[in-house]
Amino acid sequence: MPSATMKALRKTRPQSGAQLESISIPALGPTDVLVRVRAASICGTDLHIYGWDRWSASRIRPPMTFGHEFCGVIETIGAEVVSLRPGDFVSAEMHVNCGYCRPCRMGQPHVCQNLKIIGIDADGCFAEFVRIPARNIWKIDPAIPEHYAAILDPLGNAVHTVTAGEIAGQNVVVTGAGPIGLMAIAVARACGCALLLATEVNPHRRELAKRMGADEALDPAQPGIIERVRAMTDGGADVLLEMSGNPAAIRQGFQMLRQGGRASLLGIPKDEVTLDLVNDVIFKGATVQGIYGRRMFETWVHMTELLRHSRLNLEPLFRERFPLEKFETAFSLLESGQAGKVLFYPNGAPK
Amino acid sequence: MPSATMKALRKTRPQSGAQLESISIPALGPTDVLVRVRAASICGTDLHIYGWDRWSASRIRPPMTFGHEFCGVIETIGAEVVSLRPGDFVSAEMHVNCGYCRPCRMGQPHVCQNLKIIGIDADGCFAEFVRIPARNIWKIDPAIPEHYAAILDPLGNAVHTVTAGEIAGQNVVVTGAGPIGLMAIAVARACGCALLLATEVNPHRRELAKRMGADEALDPAQPGIIERVRAMTDGGADVLLEMSGNPAAIRQGFQMLRQGGRASLLGIPKDEVTLDLVNDVIFKGATVQGIYGRRMFETWVHMTELLRHSRLNLEPLFRERFPLEKFETAFSLLESGQAGKVLFYPNGAPK
Amino acid sequence: MPSATMKALRKTRPQSGAQLESISIPALGPTDVLVRVRAASICGTDLHIYGWDRWSASRIRPPMTFGHEFCGVIETIGAEVVSLRPGDFVSAEMHVNCGYCRPCRMGQPHVCQNLKIIGIDADGCFAEFVRIPARNIWKIDPAIPEHYAAILDPLGNAVHTVTAGEIAGQNVVVTGAGPIGLMAIAVARACGCALLLATEVNPHRRELAKRMGADEALDPAQPGIIERVRAMTDGGADVLLEMSGNPAAIRQGFQMLRQGGRASLLGIPKDEVTLDLVNDVIFKGATVQGIYGRRMFETWVHMTELLRHSRLNLEPLFRERFPLEKFETAFSLLESGQAGKVLFYPNGAPK
Amino acid sequence: MPSATMKALRKTRPQSGAQLESISIPALGPTDVLVRVRAASICGTDLHIYGWDRWSASRIRPPMTFGHEFCGVIETIGAEVVSLRPGDFVSAEMHVNCGYCRPCRMGQPHVCQNLKIIGIDADGCFAEFVRIPARNIWKIDPAIPEHYAAILDPLGNAVHTVTAGEIAGQNVVVTGAGPIGLMAIAVARACGCALLLATEVNPHRRELAKRMGADEALDPAQPGIIERVRAMTDGGADVLLEMSGNPAAIRQGFQMLRQGGRASLLGIPKDEVTLDLVNDVIFKGATVQGIYGRRMFETWVHMTELLRHSRLNLEPLFRERFPLEKFETAFSLLESGQAGKVLFYPNGAPK
Repeated sequence: MPSATMKALRKTRPQSGAQLESISIPALGPTDVLVRVRAASICGTDLHIYGWDRWSASRIRPPMTFGHEFCGVIETIGAEVVSLRPGDFVSAEMHVNCGYCRPCRMGQPHVCQNLKIIGIDADGCFAEFVRIPARNIWKIDPAIPEHYAAILDPLGNAVHTVTAGEIAGQNVVVTGAGPIGLMAIAVARACGCALLLATEVNPHRRELAKRMGADEALDPAQPGIIERVRAMTDGGADVLLEMSGNPAAIRQGFQMLRQGGRASLLGIPKDEVTLDLVNDVIFKGATVQGIYGRRMFETWVHMTELLRHSRLNLEPLFRERFPLEKFETAFSLLESGQAGKVLFYPNGAPK
Repeated sequence: MPSATMKALRKTRPQSGAQLESISIPALGPTDVLVRVRAASICGTDLHIYGWDRWSASRIRPPMTFGHEFCGVIETIGAEVVSLRPGDFVSAEMHVNCGYCRPCRMGQPHVCQNLKIIGIDADGCFAEFVRIPARNIWKIDPAIPEHYAAILDPLGNAVHTVTAGEIAGQNVVVTGAGPIGLMAIAVARACGCALLLATEVNPHRRELAKRMGADEALDPAQPGIIERVRAMTDGGADVLLEMSGNPAAIRQGFQMLRQGGRASLLGIPKDEVTLDLVNDVIFKGATVQGIYGRRMFETWVHMTELLRHSRLNLEPLFRERFPLEKFETAFSLLESGQAGKVLFYPNGAPK
Repeated sequence: MPSATMKALRKTRPQSGAQLESISIPALGPTDVLVRVRAASICGTDLHIYGWDRWSASRIRPPMTFGHEFCGVIETIGAEVVSLRPGDFVSAEMHVNCGYCRPCRMGQPHVCQNLKIIGIDADGCFAEFVRIPARNIWKIDPAIPEHYAAILDPLGNAVHTVTAGEIAGQNVVVTGAGPIGLMAIAVARACGCALLLATEVNPHRRELAKRMGADEALDPAQPGIIERVRAMTDGGADVLLEMSGNPAAIRQGFQMLRQGGRASLLGIPKDEVTLDLVNDVIFKGATVQGIYGRRMFETWVHMTELLRHSRLNLEPLFRERFPLEKFETAFSLLESGQAGKVLFYPNGAPK
Repeated sequence: MPSATMKALRKTRPQSGAQLESISIPALGPTDVLVRVRAASICGTDLHIYGWDRWSASRIRPPMTFGHEFCGVIETIGAEVVSLRPGDFVSAEMHVNCGYCRPCRMGQPHVCQNLKIIGIDADGCFAEFVRIPARNIWKIDPAIPEHYAAILDPLGNAVHTVTAGEIAGQNVVVTGAGPIGLMAIAVARACGCALLLATEVNPHRRELAKRMGADEALDPAQPGIIERVRAMTDGGADVLLEMSGNPAAIRQGFQMLRQGGRASLLGIPKDEVTLDLVNDVIFKGATVQGIYGRRMFETWVHMTELLRHSRLNLEPLFRERFPLEKFETAFSLLESGQAGKVLFYPNGAPK
């Protein structure tokens, strides 16, 4: 049984910054489990919450604990929980679906109409303990290293994007080589794609893109880039994986896509986007997919298997690791614009 | 053997209007057939060519015969043609694919990178005879009436749009009730859709939409229309069939679509379109499909079967029928804005 | 609050027959609901349990209440249930999946490796009340009549089978016109199939097949039947819906299937089946689907929409209705071999 | 221009053996091309033809030239051929579809109802020259080595089988490690499968299976093998690739498949096969796919891309190479039971 209180990194006021507090350990309902957090990873969304942007102000209700990427060990389980045991090494799908709306009933719980996100709409994992509904828990194969297990949430975004359509033998363009874009490169490579190109403005990230498995990492500002990609891909890429959220990249990506190609959009533009719908979608016979979250739980199975069988090398993505107390340093580091995953260890240093 | 010359409605000069001329009957290559046109239907594209808009000026190379919706009877066949016979009642897929580009090789000949369209890039069917490559010919079951057989091209657009994803048991919104939108309503109904709603600004077309099988035909300018559709469909339609090409309708249609829904876009906007990609596509987990032409030839099989088994009543769509000589009357009628299909009979009156 | 005891039709001994007993009303766990049964329908499986065949002896553990097709009204709900209310008109998916095995995690809970069936592995619905896990409850639109609501379980089998692949515009052969085969005919017709043929040895059922919407109902023993079906379908049916479980019918059905066709198998053969795998599956490029239960809950959505929008006329299927006390008469009637659905009304006569 | 005659390995009499003859070089129709054969590979089917088994006696009409796996250089082209040029390095899809039957029109030309196979129904590639319809020619990237280019036909079988469903992240069992089974192992590995198991009676082939990428190669006669595979795969493999055609292996493979899994059957049993349809297909909710030939031409694109980007190491498959004159040695070698691909070089030694 855990002690009555725990450390938690909290948003206590509707303004930038965060506070490390001691709060009560969450009480469990009959279908919940309590997880002792081993490692938690900082998402771009956490940076928005920390900085308190317009989206955060409209969505986050302080006081709350944030953080939604993590792994840990089950501490206690609710009375109705039968498939999990204290001591299980786990992560969790932090999107909690209602189970009753039309998307939930149609096999699409990841786009539930009543979705709640732990770490955004409820207390998250930047804490010693986090409460999770049992059906959202994902047991982790012990063969998967702890730091990998802490980033299954964004890796799942990448796997979901890549596997949303055929990938083996396909020519692929990834627009945007931030952390999830870089993971998508590794996943596409592991899944047997053909030519794998990335476009990215940042030279350091272009270098990382190649380390993760891209055949070439291109500067999107380079003149003639669209024609060059078309020439390399026999008329345009089979698959566009849009990971940047940048309107210019999105438009350029569509122009790099072949007739009849697939465009899977994960990157989140800040504003509306103007598209040449006729030429880039309609006459092109393109299939455009909005990608959100992770398939529950097909994506988790796929990603676990890829990791378990050592098909993905994600080491280049990892950066500094901190105790929860060093949160200001951690967020400053990320605000400075570096790519890569920064981890918290709320219950002591990494093994 | 046909006589050496024939009547043809031609675009002879780069300006509005057309000319009825006597020209040579086309000579056949070894894999071509010559078809005696029974009935030809006027498409919106023909209206653009007749009026000589910007698109026509950039694409059409006079002198040429236009027209691409028709049925007829095979007159003669080329030396290499083995599966067709003079006397066969036929229509044709007028999109001629190359067979060698990547989309062609990937089972997507309808979005061939080197597509030529008979009636746009080569002499079309507003004539007594038209030459067609044998593999583009579609033999027609004699149970299908002549006037239906003349509009398989646009009906195929509708069938392609409706059947591009699951339709049975799905709540559907059709935005735009022009001829193809009206056909899509009939097809969706025949394929077992659930609630079937249409939005259309023109009251006469709304009336037609209901005659074709829509449960309700709504005025898109009506206040609260989006909320109303969402309420009727338990959070948004499962399927959006966009047939208008109107940017406001496209945006409204996306807002009527549920989380995880399908949007199939056939209507052709004149300009670029600004979309709320985040909320209407990405976070929504929507699948957006550009629809072009007809699947070659899955769509033709589906449409033939639906017609052959009397699953579609298209009678409300038909309007006046003319000899080729009355082309000015025919085009004036269509320019006045009426919906519905106007037919030419280049070889004599309908049976 | 219901009274402490209720009537229930029970299997109390490992032998043929059943007993009507007074037993305690089930106690609810926090995620359960209690449903007052309005109408319950007798399945072929119930007949096996009643007669105590080899399968029953190996699977059923008396004492237990059987019955798994029903509708009713929620009486009380468990403490954790938030999406349901007493008074809701409901049916239920009686297959209870574990949620954690690989099929469950892969979006295939209907083939859960640890499946329990209410009415087979736990007390069922031939009683005044039945306990159901909340997530298995299906709320029913009040537009759906009570007797239709009582047979959603087998109707779901039919919908699952028909919609397991493309159906609109497809030529279909249904082998076997028992109750689920007859429902499949109605569903295929409602979903826009093309030619719809049934094969069935029983002349009365062939007559029913036509009433449900088959274009023709054929005697499978008729000489030349395979060639005739091939001729009617241009080389073989696009889709085979196998509803008989009869090995000869299965083999004949495969021979009626075209190259590249779909065979969806629901009927349950008593023994192993010898197939001409090379010609009927491999060289044919056929897709063969084992169909079990209902997709959870895509099938329920589809079937509800078809019923709600009056696309299915199932009236010809219904036969006698009885109070629970007349169970011997009911089972005798079914044992005499009649097709059609016989209903129990444990809480009073039908409205 | 080639000389008027050429060497060809022919079946001139309805009995075992073959004859090397000098015959006229094939004359071209307007849509044909003539290919100078560089390397031709011997298929198991060629062995049947050589040995004149029952199937051969019923299908082959001597005199004819056999052989259907090859690569070469275009020598001359027919008058209507526009997309190919003399000097192009090519292979060919030897299955010639009619283009007009229902499967052809439904996007399934590989299971055409009127299929002719070059090398079986028409003169094949065990000759200095072979005539091929232009649309069946596959241009080969010069990056692909000649000996790989000679075996695209069976490699295409393997790619078709593996990619007939989801493969990335899937646990796979391959039953049978003959040449195509071995290729399937390499392809599944390249496409990101998870655990990859093979079953094979021959120890030498088991060794090869591991060299091609299998995690384990199991003896199917080993006691408890089914339980072991189920334990290794969390309840059964996601995917069964059946490459043996052996009835016992087929049955065992189905028992190794999980609930809801995919079974893709390519191996050709000599006789009918008795299956436990209820438990292995129906209750299992399995999807069983007959695999025949290669998708035209999706499979060719996929395989070309995998080879072009060096994702497949097929070197362990290759064995002896012979001039056409040494055909008796070549066939004796294969009749002795060795796995692997033996090549003919009708126009001179390999580069």
